[in-house]
Amino acid sequence: MTATEPLPPGSIIGILGGGQLGRMLALAAARLGMKTHIFCPDPESPAFDVTPRRTVAAYDDDIALAAFAAAVDVVTYEFENVPVATARFLAARKPLHPGAAALEIAQDRLREKTFVSGLGIGVAPWRPVASRADLDSAIADLGPPAVLKTTRLGYDGKGQRLLRAPADAAAAFAELEPKPLVLEAFIPFDREVSVIVARGATGEIRAFDPAENVHRHHILATSTVPANLTAAQTTAAVEAASRIVAALDYVGVLGVEFFVAGDTLLVNEIAPRVHNSGHWTEAVCVTDQFEQHIRAILGWPLGDPTRLADVQLENLIGEAALNLPARLGPGIRPHLYGKREARPGRKMGHLDHIVLPPVK
Amino acid sequence: MTATEPLPPGSIIGILGGGQLGRMLALAAARLGMKTHIFCPDPESPAFDVTPRRTVAAYDDDIALAAFAAAVDVVTYEFENVPVATARFLAARKPLHPGAAALEIAQDRLREKTFVSGLGIGVAPWRPVASRADLDSAIADLGPPAVLKTTRLGYDGKGQRLLRAPADAAAAFAELEPKPLVLEAFIPFDREVSVIVARGATGEIRAFDPAENVHRHHILATSTVPANLTAAQTTAAVEAASRIVAALDYVGVLGVEFFVAGDTLLVNEIAPRVHNSGHWTEAVCVTDQFEQHIRAILGWPLGDPTRLADVQLENLIGEAALNLPARLGPGIRPHLYGKREARPGRKMGHLDHIVLPPVK
Repeated sequence: MTATEPLPPGSIIGILGGGQLGRMLALAAARLGMKTHIFCPDPESPAFDVTPRRTVAAYDDDIALAAFAAAVDVVTYEFENVPVATARFLAARKPLHPGAAALEIAQDRLREKTFVSGLGIGVAPWRPVASRADLDSAIADLGPPAVLKTTRLGYDGKGQRLLRAPADAAAAFAELEPKPLVLEAFIPFDREVSVIVARGATGEIRAFDPAENVHRHHILATSTVPANLTAAQTTAAVEAASRIVAALDYVGVLGVEFFVAGDTLLVNEIAPRVHNSGHWTEAVCVTDQFEQHIRAILGWPLGDPTRLADVQLENLIGEAALNLPARLGPGIRPHLYGKREARPGRKMGHLDHIVLPPVK
Repeated sequence: MTATEPLPPGSIIGILGGGQLGRMLALAAARLGMKTHIFCPDPESPAFDVTPRRTVAAYDDDIALAAFAAAVDVVTYEFENVPVATARFLAARKPLHPGAAALEIAQDRLREKTFVSGLGIGVAPWRPVASRADLDSAIADLGPPAVLKTTRLGYDGKGQRLLRAPADAAAAFAELEPKPLVLEAFIPFDREVSVIVARGATGEIRAFDPAENVHRHHILATSTVPANLTAAQTTAAVEAASRIVAALDYVGVLGVEFFVAGDTLLVNEIAPRVHNSGHWTEAVCVTDQFEQHIRAILGWPLGDPTRLADVQLENLIGEAALNLPARLGPGIRPHLYGKREARPGRKMGHLDHIVLPPVK
């Protein structure tokens, strides 16, 4: 089912997933006069604190899903590992954006790489790895160093191993689950950047300025805007992201991560959702990524992604979120996610460090 | 009771009043990782849509108020007509910010004018009017034109009459309730401006840039920033607002409305709460008025009120909020309040028209 005209204020947006992304989507929906209903198996979900409407149930609970679909006007999700069967079940009952096709591609690294390179967009060289023998021949082709990854369910560095020498192959192959795997050439990149792009129901496309990302322990640490890119690289990155959403007939916001190596831009991965490296848009853009996503799935015209200031996003991981008041100073806009416990590696919130205009 | 150290994320903020101001306060609180509990007699309150915690009860329901106080860590309010008895009842149980003293002054025009002019800040000349005889002698002093107002419960032009001639006195006196009244000299002002000012728990004071306000039918239509003021007028307005919050030992955000007549600034009224003429701060300031208020009542350091762009706030009154998607264009940031019915004169939402930076 597809929405044919813009959904009016007061509509109920169903969101699968109750983490910080679902929470920020719900806050943006509220600013547009919408109601939200969060579906999440975890009764402690942070998004439950920003709406009175919730369903606590498993993603394969068809009775709960059917009731959820009946209670909402449109469905979206905050994470790319929504089971495709769940997405199809809901899409048969209410408009679902982004569609299940984008999920299927983003959930499988092999499909994703095949899809992206099929659009003429560069990706790191790769080989599918279903067996130990596949891995040995892939290492022979792509050499160490190379990165062995699961094709499914990886995030924040989970589900991958760097192979520095052929001798690393056996243990990495044994440990990584689920199979099959994929071996990717190690890209000695100069920097990582991302583009957050949106496509509306009528096909219009708007991108935010690219961000330059630094990861620590495989978790995003900072995103800086503007990124250190040439004008040609910026154009190429935005064009690649735009081509991806157009080819997917996508409705919503999507994040594309790139490696930049010399003049080469390679897509690392795509995420069919709002993206951590776009949280800064909330602090400095006319329309932020969360509102942009909500507008797209409502069938509204997309908003203006113009940026009013330079900015650096700093993720608050684990205990970095404690004693926050003492850390706040000029130009800093904090955002905390309402998570109870500051566990190591857990994304607790972020700070946007806004570059202030000169005093007149 | 007073908070002695900053309340941590996860604290529960109790908000009296469930209109758009309570709703926007709750959204800002969520961005700081806080939970909110809304207390409002109206079961259809817009703020109920942005939190799972609510109490539907009258403001004089002591049992409901006691349970509310027990369920929250700090109490604030979104409107100045909270009964003072309610405020005192809650303040005996949990920290209440702003304090009941500010309510008492803001709820009574006579007290307010006495207080403000006692600080050496200009107000329109006025006379208390308890009887018809008082009114005749006040008209003799202040002349028509003059404005007869209730001392209590006025808002958006309700509770006032313009007296163009002495002959208007009898009907106006008979109609306006509750008594006593106050007669104010009519100020032929050049413009109206407002200052949104915040005072933190430690006494620090921060003001947003003054806004220039245009009312239609006694309801705010637009707020434009920067206001058309000289540097000296800007300084005088901010200083007056700062003196008011300091004198009240105030904690939270307060709005001060001024008439500007030539070189003279006169305080029209003060509102002990976030203010409609400060909604633009959400679109263009590092810290907006809602977050600033929440920070103050939590005992956090105040945020940075720096403005990143020029802006005009446009209120969406009644049917002006319908067919919104078609009205959205570059530089426009919409905010709707989730009200069901677009009744005439009802504030349904607002648009911030942001002046975009020149394209680089």
